[in-house]
Amino acid sequence: MLTASICTIGDEILIGQIVDTNKSYISSALNTAGIKVISHLTTGDDENSIESTINSALSSSDIVIATGGLGPTKDDITKRVLAKISGNSEMFYDSKQLEIIKSICLKREVLLSDLNKDQALVPVNCTVFQNSFGTAPAMKFIIGDKLLYSLPGVPYEMQHLIELVIKDIETLGRCEKIIHHSFNSYGIPESELAQKLSEWEDNLPKGFKLAYLPNPAKGVKLRLSVYDGEELSNKETIKGLFNELKGILGNSLYGEGEDTLESVVSKALAERGETLSVAESCTGGNIGRIFTSIPGSSSLFKGGITAYDNSAKTDILGVDPGIIEKFGAVSEECVVAMAISVKKMFKTDWSISTSGIAGPDGGTDEKPLGTLWIAVSGPNVLVTKKSVYFGDRERNITRFSSGAVDFLRKTMGVELNFINV
Amino acid sequence: MLTASICTIGDEILIGQIVDTNKSYISSALNTAGIKVISHLTTGDDENSIESTINSALSSSDIVIATGGLGPTKDDITKRVLAKISGNSEMFYDSKQLEIIKSICLKREVLLSDLNKDQALVPVNCTVFQNSFGTAPAMKFIIGDKLLYSLPGVPYEMQHLIELVIKDIETLGRCEKIIHHSFNSYGIPESELAQKLSEWEDNLPKGFKLAYLPNPAKGVKLRLSVYDGEELSNKETIKGLFNELKGILGNSLYGEGEDTLESVVSKALAERGETLSVAESCTGGNIGRIFTSIPGSSSLFKGGITAYDNSAKTDILGVDPGIIEKFGAVSEECVVAMAISVKKMFKTDWSISTSGIAGPDGGTDEKPLGTLWIAVSGPNVLVTKKSVYFGDRERNITRFSSGAVDFLRKTMGVELNFINV
Repeated sequence: MLTASICTIGDEILIGQIVDTNKSYISSALNTAGIKVISHLTTGDDENSIESTINSALSSSDIVIATGGLGPTKDDITKRVLAKISGNSEMFYDSKQLEIIKSICLKREVLLSDLNKDQALVPVNCTVFQNSFGTAPAMKFIIGDKLLYSLPGVPYEMQHLIELVIKDIETLGRCEKIIHHSFNSYGIPESELAQKLSEWEDNLPKGFKLAYLPNPAKGVKLRLSVYDGEELSNKETIKGLFNELKGILGNSLYGEGEDTLESVVSKALAERGETLSVAESCTGGNIGRIFTSIPGSSSLFKGGITAYDNSAKTDILGVDPGIIEKFGAVSEECVVAMAISVKKMFKTDWSISTSGIAGPDGGTDEKPLGTLWIAVSGPNVLVTKKSVYFGDRERNITRFSSGAVDFLRKTMGVELNFINV
Repeated sequence: MLTASICTIGDEILIGQIVDTNKSYISSALNTAGIKVISHLTTGDDENSIESTINSALSSSDIVIATGGLGPTKDDITKRVLAKISGNSEMFYDSKQLEIIKSICLKREVLLSDLNKDQALVPVNCTVFQNSFGTAPAMKFIIGDKLLYSLPGVPYEMQHLIELVIKDIETLGRCEKIIHHSFNSYGIPESELAQKLSEWEDNLPKGFKLAYLPNPAKGVKLRLSVYDGEELSNKETIKGLFNELKGILGNSLYGEGEDTLESVVSKALAERGETLSVAESCTGGNIGRIFTSIPGSSSLFKGGITAYDNSAKTDILGVDPGIIEKFGAVSEECVVAMAISVKKMFKTDWSISTSGIAGPDGGTDEKPLGTLWIAVSGPNVLVTKKSVYFGDRERNITRFSSGAVDFLRKTMGVELNFINV
């Protein structure tokens, strides 16, 4: 099995100023492609340390992926070290990357500086993977029988480039065939899921492994990995396992692979030719933001009212001030009025409304911190739900929002019934 | 200066199942205590790899902090390796930790199993730091003239124990005083900043180092680090350097340390007793979300209208349909109408409006993908701005939003004028 080490470069990582998410992202991508990651290494922006770290990684694994240290500022010295490791310190301008840099400068309306231009300067011994989303390209070096890739550290750029890198590694024909298939669930906490699935998990066929990947916005992803056996029969087995899982978890299963709560809801709305609006209090616009993140959503997501302040609830959404006075803004009566009103204002088929206490202040004995009221109004249906979450403000807003989208999903009757392996 | 390496242990990190936040936390804590972190290393749950990783870290730094691999399940073999490295594989039960384990089991209403009990079993060559918040204690080994600490990987438990570890290190009397101070800028790309600051950076006093940390939502953070000299005079020097920086960058400097665009704007609104509303098209509620993330923002952020669909712009915000017909929804005329309307509807002092093309479709020659129109309306002021960004849909929405918040900031005249070192 091909082995890999990941080296990330940057003083900002070593002083703890940022959490380095690149290693986790790359590890997951390599793993999915059947490449085993055996170590993570991080070093500062220091020439000797970079050199010794990369050399040590090269000595222990088949592939080394380095990120960071390629920016235009002078603390970025990685390229010089890579050239040295490759045995030739000469550099040349990669013309395609230079064109990209020019067009980026043009779009940003900044002059093409020497610093920008030098981003296209690469060691002669490397193969360039152009970076369409930034100025620094990725590079590949062949060092003896090892492969060394260097990528920019900006997560967004790295994430596009790592796909090219993995495709390149796959051309070696030495990656093993690992099948990963994920089933996405929402609404059951990880520990409870593990209990519900304990017996099923113990009886998984040989070579099958289950992992739980929890995420506050997406629920718990259940990832099946298959390391042995025939691809075709494994896929048939996965279909059978899905039916068993569906029997245990029911409509808590909402998708597979990269599906999100909002993507399955959007797809269902589009198929039915229906539309959505939102009236948000505590979520402050985040549910709108979630649906907006889906390309082409403007045909189904019409918009919404963020009524963060009570006066906005009464003046804009027309909630009866008596409701707020009698029941409070965080109440079933208030979210019902909000959902009905926004649906009428935006002339949509569906609407969601939220009102809750995100914290850190505002909780009471009766309505503790983390309390959320949701209402969903649709064609011939009006339902409400109360939940209490435990988290800080940021996490509560995230969970409030995904909880509301999930409630819409269940009210619409959207669930995972067939899978594509 | 004392140097440290951090080793984290666990297969779940190497397959990318979790983002390892411990390294960043420990780095920041050590750095603040004046200990220089020179490398991060991660290895899987494999005896040989753990041994060679820890030995390699011991060979290059004065202090090694290891986390993880101390849980009760069978893949946790760290303790055995540590005993081996310390030169004596014998173990004993730490009676104080055993008491803690018993009381935890009692609280959780589970029986004290052998697995639990063995959590108190530690190598004879170590000093124990009891863990009051979990079952696995921290351990300290003296290996030649180096110090090796092992902590559990659960972030919450580790965070309590690292304080004890740092106090222990400080008794050596060899920690130096490192000062870090960050200045936060927005609106100037990293490469252009580097050019503007090139001469200034070259003339920084001895022992001062500058780093650029770009972030799509926050702009570029400029971090000054001071490794030498007297604390008091260094702080005075930083104040002087700030004044120079301010002279070069002007109102692009918006904050220091953990300040964000939205936090400085919110603070200014609160101080002035003014309020804000938003009318969002392409940002879909994200600007609202950004302001909602600040605790207590309900007194200044009243809410907003997400008018994602054109009908919402005309029907809810009352934008003249003739404007959209003549100039399009992504136009100066449209954002002006949106900003004026939402400010009136929510009766606020300030309003922001956005309309743009986030992609991936919808761009034209005249209005390319990434085009954003912003309007800001305030007491006696109405200004507009057009920008073109370059990214995928997610990134464009993030940059559109921070660009709009920054435009509000500049229109309000909020900038960084004094610093607290």
